[in-house]
Amino acid sequence: MPEFLHLTPPEDALDRFMKTWSGPESITATQIETEDALGRVTAGDISAPHPLPPFPRSTVDGFALRAEDTHGATPSLPAYLEIAGEVHMGTTAEINITSGQAAIVHTGGMIPPGATAVIMLEDTQQLNEGEIEIHKAVAVGENILVEGEDVKRGEVVIPRGTLLRAQEIGGLLALGYTKILVAKRPRVGILSSGDEVVPPSHKPTPGQVRDINSYTLAALVERSGGRPIRRGIVADDRASLESAALESFQEDDIVLITAGSSVSARDITVEILAGLGEPGVLVHGLAIKPGKPTILALAGNKPLIGLPGNPVSALVVGGLILPPILRRMLGLAEAIWSPEIPARLTVNIASQSGREDYQPVRLIASGDGTLAEPIYGRSNLIFTLVRADGLVRIPADANGLPAGEEVIVRLF
Amino acid sequence: MPEFLHLTPPEDALDRFMKTWSGPESITATQIETEDALGRVTAGDISAPHPLPPFPRSTVDGFALRAEDTHGATPSLPAYLEIAGEVHMGTTAEINITSGQAAIVHTGGMIPPGATAVIMLEDTQQLNEGEIEIHKAVAVGENILVEGEDVKRGEVVIPRGTLLRAQEIGGLLALGYTKILVAKRPRVGILSSGDEVVPPSHKPTPGQVRDINSYTLAALVERSGGRPIRRGIVADDRASLESAALESFQEDDIVLITAGSSVSARDITVEILAGLGEPGVLVHGLAIKPGKPTILALAGNKPLIGLPGNPVSALVVGGLILPPILRRMLGLAEAIWSPEIPARLTVNIASQSGREDYQPVRLIASGDGTLAEPIYGRSNLIFTLVRADGLVRIPADANGLPAGEEVIVRLF
Repeated sequence: MPEFLHLTPPEDALDRFMKTWSGPESITATQIETEDALGRVTAGDISAPHPLPPFPRSTVDGFALRAEDTHGATPSLPAYLEIAGEVHMGTTAEINITSGQAAIVHTGGMIPPGATAVIMLEDTQQLNEGEIEIHKAVAVGENILVEGEDVKRGEVVIPRGTLLRAQEIGGLLALGYTKILVAKRPRVGILSSGDEVVPPSHKPTPGQVRDINSYTLAALVERSGGRPIRRGIVADDRASLESAALESFQEDDIVLITAGSSVSARDITVEILAGLGEPGVLVHGLAIKPGKPTILALAGNKPLIGLPGNPVSALVVGGLILPPILRRMLGLAEAIWSPEIPARLTVNIASQSGREDYQPVRLIASGDGTLAEPIYGRSNLIFTLVRADGLVRIPADANGLPAGEEVIVRLF
Repeated sequence: MPEFLHLTPPEDALDRFMKTWSGPESITATQIETEDALGRVTAGDISAPHPLPPFPRSTVDGFALRAEDTHGATPSLPAYLEIAGEVHMGTTAEINITSGQAAIVHTGGMIPPGATAVIMLEDTQQLNEGEIEIHKAVAVGENILVEGEDVKRGEVVIPRGTLLRAQEIGGLLALGYTKILVAKRPRVGILSSGDEVVPPSHKPTPGQVRDINSYTLAALVERSGGRPIRRGIVADDRASLESAALESFQEDDIVLITAGSSVSARDITVEILAGLGEPGVLVHGLAIKPGKPTILALAGNKPLIGLPGNPVSALVVGGLILPPILRRMLGLAEAIWSPEIPARLTVNIASQSGREDYQPVRLIASGDGTLAEPIYGRSNLIFTLVRADGLVRIPADANGLPAGEEVIVRLF
């Protein structure tokens, strides 16, 4: 059976896949330590068990007082207040401030009851142990963080489906959440097929090449929030590939095959993926370079992906397809802002109309802004990407891009 | 002793620090599995033990032949060639192609000796088991990847000081490097000081707050290639802080203290850092908001950093200062392109001239490009950053930025 590709524009392909796929039935949650949760996704809404700050705090070093006691105060006509005591850091303020009184407070310290404002140290003059001059008027609430100013009790502070960064970890710990429910990382079974492929630790004989896709795709899966399950190298015959794909289908949440590079190997891959269940193959062939021989399929609710055997193609197309699929499996609510750098092309880039091209480029800092220099490799060899900082997308309706053109470089 | 800050512009401060600091005497290397090396930095030049590809390969499915045998061939006036055999994937091509002969080859397969080009399957017609028609002329080298086209034997393919991404992992494995020497991750001792600070697992009494800086800074250190050593919460008295700082100084590569937020706590911090050795404190106070009370110091060759106790200030300034210091310690040769997104401000942002402001913003996708909406929090509370996607830098010489202004948002 010969290969027969209907080339679909990448966006349409992903769109068709996402519309047919109903997504996971539910997000499997797992409890982990909050301090280990960087890069994970919340599996439920998180609300504040208490307000933040939990008590009124001073934002400066100075004196807590009643604002009305400072009205009209200037350096030449100061107000005079009695020092009623000091609020020590980490302690409950127990001094009750009445009219004519002030208490020493430190940045972050608790505001004593009765006080309505804090005057900064530099706007005062201490006369003796028990008395200060006030050189400036302060308004009610000045230099005070009120209870709940950051977060109110019961407020949903981190909704389900949030990617946890350093600040979310901090916010959770500030609320006392030392453990947290996150989405389990989806298992992505990675099969590398090809009779010519040997493990990296082997010395290839002429005609053989080392497996690298298993490892580069594992890195990509990991970076996108998944758990890569490397299932090794499978021979390019139907029986071996079929049993390896079935095992992955039974155990993993996504089946990912990088096909052998020959047409017959790719034909076997598409037949095997189609055979795993309905609705089967949704997309076979993308109008994209590199990455044309890509397969998107579903068996029941489980995504099945066939990527080209060429390492650059696999990494470029994998980088377009895997993140949105994993995002949905993780229940990630918001779009992730992917890192991009605006730059200007150093030379013309040719491209074929009707096909989206992804051109590896190197970024060069110049006095005149950032420049993007295409890295050419005749056949998408892995070191083309080693020399590149990112990719420039050339739209399907463009006939190349001219030198000097402003482009957006998607960083790897 | 009162606090006395000379506010230095952040760039000048970092510049002064980097010029005074000679950097690490040498990069400590450690050998790890290549497949675990994502995000690590090479500790030595890596050169190719063999060329890549290691043998001439076909880039298409077709027939390997001598180019001159196809000269003048067209569909109406085809050339006729004898099929001398097939090169199976993963095997050494042993058929010697002579004039008038062709061999079946698959994409990625080895080019048999004697052949100088490959014709694509679709430009041929098989007549019988032993003979094909050639419908098109091919040039010498057409559809062939020559040996060493990606990488030559002995070529330095990954220089020392390279950050390893998915493609470098792939490139290393393609060359058979299953283990690799990388720079050891610098130990960053993180001390959190403050009498009001309690561990996240404790229920704070009024006046106390939970430690979050230890954790957010640990995440930042980890993301920047360092190894965070959380040294816990230290009381705001000289003896405790001095002994904790000394222990970190003796065991870690960088000492990082987030100071208690009161002036006296910050004074103790600067004195203790100054006391660890010469040249001592280089910068005390940055012309930046948030993050003014920052300390950059050196004891011998060891960086000592004092960050503000405010969690947002610590994270913003830490994000500016730690990555370049860790980069030098790791021997990272090239600048890292930090992820940025161009966007337009939704509203005016006020700022004070003479001070660099970092304003947290939320990104909003709109039909009209990406918008950046400032997130205001009166006193830099942690959930201000939870609600933000990145920071907009407002230069010291600007008096705020107007609505509609094109800005670059640095993603967290």
